[in-house]
Amino acid sequence: MISLKMLIKNTFIVTMDQEKGNIEKGYIYIEDEKIREVGIGEYNEEVKGIKVINGEGYCAMPGLINCHTHASMTLLRGYGEGLPLMKWLNEKIWPMERKFEEKHIKIGTGIACIEMLRSGTTTLNDMYFMMPEVMKGMENFNMRAMLGTTIIGQNWEKQLSDAIDLKEIVKKKNNRGLLTTSFAPHSPYSLSFEALREVAQAAKQYKENIHIHVSETTDELDIVKQKYNMTPVELMVKTGIADNKVTAAHCVHLNNKDIKIIKEKDISVIYNPQSNMKLASGTPRIIEMLDENINVCLGTDGTSSNNNLNMFEEMETGVMLQNLFYKDATRISSEKMLKIATINGAKALGLEKLGVLKEGYFADIIMINLNKPNLIPCHDIYSNIVFSANGSEVEYVIINGKIVMDNGEFVDIDEERILYESNKFFKESI
Amino acid sequence: MISLKMLIKNTFIVTMDQEKGNIEKGYIYIEDEKIREVGIGEYNEEVKGIKVINGEGYCAMPGLINCHTHASMTLLRGYGEGLPLMKWLNEKIWPMERKFEEKHIKIGTGIACIEMLRSGTTTLNDMYFMMPEVMKGMENFNMRAMLGTTIIGQNWEKQLSDAIDLKEIVKKKNNRGLLTTSFAPHSPYSLSFEALREVAQAAKQYKENIHIHVSETTDELDIVKQKYNMTPVELMVKTGIADNKVTAAHCVHLNNKDIKIIKEKDISVIYNPQSNMKLASGTPRIIEMLDENINVCLGTDGTSSNNNLNMFEEMETGVMLQNLFYKDATRISSEKMLKIATINGAKALGLEKLGVLKEGYFADIIMINLNKPNLIPCHDIYSNIVFSANGSEVEYVIINGKIVMDNGEFVDIDEERILYESNKFFKESI
Repeated sequence: MISLKMLIKNTFIVTMDQEKGNIEKGYIYIEDEKIREVGIGEYNEEVKGIKVINGEGYCAMPGLINCHTHASMTLLRGYGEGLPLMKWLNEKIWPMERKFEEKHIKIGTGIACIEMLRSGTTTLNDMYFMMPEVMKGMENFNMRAMLGTTIIGQNWEKQLSDAIDLKEIVKKKNNRGLLTTSFAPHSPYSLSFEALREVAQAAKQYKENIHIHVSETTDELDIVKQKYNMTPVELMVKTGIADNKVTAAHCVHLNNKDIKIIKEKDISVIYNPQSNMKLASGTPRIIEMLDENINVCLGTDGTSSNNNLNMFEEMETGVMLQNLFYKDATRISSEKMLKIATINGAKALGLEKLGVLKEGYFADIIMINLNKPNLIPCHDIYSNIVFSANGSEVEYVIINGKIVMDNGEFVDIDEERILYESNKFFKESI
Repeated sequence: MISLKMLIKNTFIVTMDQEKGNIEKGYIYIEDEKIREVGIGEYNEEVKGIKVINGEGYCAMPGLINCHTHASMTLLRGYGEGLPLMKWLNEKIWPMERKFEEKHIKIGTGIACIEMLRSGTTTLNDMYFMMPEVMKGMENFNMRAMLGTTIIGQNWEKQLSDAIDLKEIVKKKNNRGLLTTSFAPHSPYSLSFEALREVAQAAKQYKENIHIHVSETTDELDIVKQKYNMTPVELMVKTGIADNKVTAAHCVHLNNKDIKIIKEKDISVIYNPQSNMKLASGTPRIIEMLDENINVCLGTDGTSSNNNLNMFEEMETGVMLQNLFYKDATRISSEKMLKIATINGAKALGLEKLGVLKEGYFADIIMINLNKPNLIPCHDIYSNIVFSANGSEVEYVIINGKIVMDNGEFVDIDEERILYESNKFFKESI
């Protein structure tokens, strides 16, 4: 097999590597799926016949990692907007979801992938139904993804079995190592004790991550309290869920004991600030959790509660919401927030060689055009990325060493056709 | 004089006109600075020799009105990020501002205008220093603006005199009616009683708007309480400031009596959600004020506390923050928020024929490209504009009947050169 080489030259580099920091003008040399070298100045070896990107005026940085979303739900962006929660679910979302077939999932996943790539997300932690169809979507767009089949309510045995099957389907396909799976029990309140215990055991047996919603609303707390006289986090311990590698979405309503458990069990907390604000769920105690060295990562949630998949917006809102909550604008730096959206996400998903631009790491790289009015001047690159960028500055996307977006245009993806067909589909079928 | 005509055809139109609502496929006919006709279907008259924009796949809507900003401060975007407030002001912002000369203001205003236009803002309410220089900037970019010379501290007499002079300068230039002026006393706490009273009288004499920061932080409340044993809003009444047409930025910390005064005095409240969150100022009681029929409008504040001038982000954060604060996701619809960012802004600035796409109104129109992944599907156009768009979808901007951005490219503005020169300037001088 001939190895695939690529060089990014003359570029500003935010490595997120503690030793190297930022490089004003440097290069990144890529071989196959990995970064071979990150250096200052010019790359000295001959580069004839390989792809070279002139990164002048750009900032290369690790691709963003969206640790909690439901990509296919993009079908329902803005659907039933503004209704009270239960009316919205009962009259809009659930009846529509029941109608979903494979074609819906295919279209929803496609639109989501295009949106994510265009706004710099290269890896996602997904949770939804009909995952084999989602898998195909992710493959087509070269996304790095952890796929979790939702397990919820009465039908959990079938869903757990689907989740185990998915593991085999994904494994067989290989997918250049881009796709992995998780078990995704919906939440402590929406499954029986037995179901949670069985999922916990299956995850242990297969050494899989668990992706779960935890303590998102006060209603959820009341339900679990009434049923078990404990918190959702305590219920995760009791059922064995917490004995696995867990990524816990939301964690809005935690008491001190919950935080202590999360730390002890090394659970990754997924912060979804825009969803938590939009749905009026509340504000999670992120700064305190960071102070406890809990691994906090970032997610957009689905477009029906956000209503976009833009991680740049999420980073900005993520800092602002903590500033407001703790009445202190100095606690969470923009560099820290970028770490949350990159390295911490990689850690949560067990992807050790990801989230940093460094030799031996996966070449998941985005490049933002610094020559945009909202990024001038650049007194502080982290501040500009987190607070001033809106995501549309992303013009190059490389995942696993493969170029997916080149100078603003998709490679091997017919974006125009997909957008046209999706629009047509929605107008005709929803 | 030959009148300038323009036709936008085949487009989706969000008129913001209560009678007309949205038009699925229609046209807008413009003559000189005004909208002559907004209609459904095809425009029937002959359109030979005039500018025609084919709006298929676009949504035409009123230009956004940024009711509180400091455009030239864009020089200081991200400067001293993350420092505590007083350290940031004393060691970073104020020493830098003291160095500012005309060339700094020119460059800062230019970058700000490009950023605003690219994200759909057509009108702004500006407050800063060296306003004749800002005026030139606004003219060059065809912005509609109300310009307020900041009056602050000991040097208020000179500044008030400058503000009166500015009125004459702006008037003489005529500027096609695009530019107006206001008096901009910085805030109740940063001026003496006498200064406030004098500014109030001048505003009355010249029939000018007053643009002022009010009750932004608890520190400000403490200062005014200690000095006068009243609230900043009460001090506005006592000094006569409130007897003018006032646009009051922030209004984060109001008691019930303050809200009553604001209603009685018909003061417009400028909501700056991103600045209020980022600086940890607090959450204004916007929904209660809307319930009282107070005219609430929207602003970004300056880029040193935001750090962008993107009104699309501001609309999104504006709803989300109120949802969170009132623990209710149903109180402020996306249509209502768009009204706040358009009609309400026009009302605040006394621009009666603005903020609606309607016959006889000023032709300040933006067109967003709906064929973007983050705007598909479109179940609800208001929701997509407020929650899903990020501002980069704006591809046409018309102000006062003149096309400023045409299919993503500026007309009569050399964007590339301005960005290049600004970048060079910042690297060399800051």
